[in-house]
Amino acid sequence: MAVRIDEVHRFMEESLAAVGAPLMEAKAQADLLIHADLVGHFSHGLNRLELYINDMKNGICKPAARPVILKESAATVWVDGAHALGATVGNFCMDLAIKKAKESGVGWVSAKGCNHFGMAGYWALKAEREGLIGMAFTNSAPIMTPTRSKNSANGTNPIAMAAPAGDGDSLVVDMATTAAAMGKVEIQMRKGEKIPEGWALGPDAKLTTDAELAFKSGRLMPLGGFEETSGYKGYGLSVMVEQFCSDLSGSNPSHKVSGWSYTQTQPPNMGQCFVAIDPERFAPGFQGLREKSKGLPGSLQKSGAS
Amino acid sequence: MAVRIDEVHRFMEESLAAVGAPLMEAKAQADLLIHADLVGHFSHGLNRLELYINDMKNGICKPAARPVILKESAATVWVDGAHALGATVGNFCMDLAIKKAKESGVGWVSAKGCNHFGMAGYWALKAEREGLIGMAFTNSAPIMTPTRSKNSANGTNPIAMAAPAGDGDSLVVDMATTAAAMGKVEIQMRKGEKIPEGWALGPDAKLTTDAELAFKSGRLMPLGGFEETSGYKGYGLSVMVEQFCSDLSGSNPSHKVSGWSYTQTQPPNMGQCFVAIDPERFAPGFQGLREKSKGLPGSLQKSGAS
Repeated sequence: MAVRIDEVHRFMEESLAAVGAPLMEAKAQADLLIHADLVGHFSHGLNRLELYINDMKNGICKPAARPVILKESAATVWVDGAHALGATVGNFCMDLAIKKAKESGVGWVSAKGCNHFGMAGYWALKAEREGLIGMAFTNSAPIMTPTRSKNSANGTNPIAMAAPAGDGDSLVVDMATTAAAMGKVEIQMRKGEKIPEGWALGPDAKLTTDAELAFKSGRLMPLGGFEETSGYKGYGLSVMVEQFCSDLSGSNPSHKVSGWSYTQTQPPNMGQCFVAIDPERFAPGFQGLREKSKGLPGSLQKSGAS
Repeated sequence: MAVRIDEVHRFMEESLAAVGAPLMEAKAQADLLIHADLVGHFSHGLNRLELYINDMKNGICKPAARPVILKESAATVWVDGAHALGATVGNFCMDLAIKKAKESGVGWVSAKGCNHFGMAGYWALKAEREGLIGMAFTNSAPIMTPTRSKNSANGTNPIAMAAPAGDGDSLVVDMATTAAAMGKVEIQMRKGEKIPEGWALGPDAKLTTDAELAFKSGRLMPLGGFEETSGYKGYGLSVMVEQFCSDLSGSNPSHKVSGWSYTQTQPPNMGQCFVAIDPERFAPGFQGLREKSKGLPGSLQKSGAS
């Protein structure tokens, strides 16, 4: 059975409104989730609606709350997300980053008091549509086991970057700093297939290729996998994301962020970071430069690498 | 035989001066190289002196040149490195990024006309010593083979970040976006040992564990290795670095940067990017926050991850 996109959007909007989201906020959250489905990131779309609604029912997400500016300078803003919906905080913060980038060349916004903001690339693309380079980062509940550790400490801590390219195209990088997302482990589990070596550790903190064991263990390996293939680099990147998200904003660090559950009573208080850079402040022909490299050997400069 | 550090420094300084570097520039370049040796990055220290000197003899590095500001706004500077020594351009650009960060919260500097700037972490640490978060990026000659490609297109394109921590300590991430640096392949070759799967491809663009073949092939794999272990993420990161370095600055992209050789006649015209962020513009207690997380399970927040 096929369902029209606008019908899915209406369903999400009204569901969110039914548990207390103001209409504008419900629409923005539905826009965020449907974008993920439209670009094929089904793990971050409609399938998560129930989790967002549950967070609102539990009172750990406050859909009518408004984010607040705590400190501001020419190129920076420190924000309290006030536990509002992910899309409410994302739009508030990226609008500020865009404004600062247009005024000062760069806008760097870090926010505490955040809930899940969906796919990170959505926020980077918001700046890209203004002709800017956009970046977005978030921390998350600890399911990544650092190199030489037995237990998980960091989140999947994604890095997203989007930049305008020629012919109305864009370059998008949107990636967890783990080797693979937990959603990919789940897919292998449902198919009854193994996972590759280097994705995850079992509950004994040793290599596993058993998808179900990996799913239950919650010990994803950092990008790079084992130490001999430089897994500590993925770990280093996740720590860099932690700096931008929790250390700058004063939010919970990853290891104190609670995972999504139906019995949660404390807001996750995640940290998020939104950056916009105006390429017009640098060499002329930013989009044109990339245009010229089209078709060169191995060039992915015009297509996504997420 | 042990040689005193100050004697090594004097040797480097006088060698650089002998082929035309002004005394200040020779000293700065010697400071950069000796730092790498002191922190154990022997691949980026004294062993490279001959390459820098050769570049000056060939006239592709112009040691008396001064970098020039081409465009400037509250938080950004576009610089022409004028093919000066790596340390000359690095100091010029990071000093500007630091100044902008102190004035506007963030300083973002992209430069064209660059030569090799040594270890990227050295430049990030320059901002860290001012109480700022520092970042540094550079592109380089193409020795990384993108996912699904047969030939190399991008450089090792490193990402470096440094941030002040408690007790005078610092957090440093300094990593090539390839699975392993070519220097590591070279070490395995000299030891007559194999390299792990996921480091490099042979001349046929297929997996090799033969260090000598990998060294001659010049086809390093991106961080993450093969596609099934998310090598496209390392590739995506190297493209992100390319944006900051060559697309913003108008320098050569990686695939046009010439490798170090004794017969080179054209300047490499690399692109480099230097960023400083003032944590005081965000939540109070930036260093203290990290301090509190010391000793938590899996926390690497106080030590380097390079």
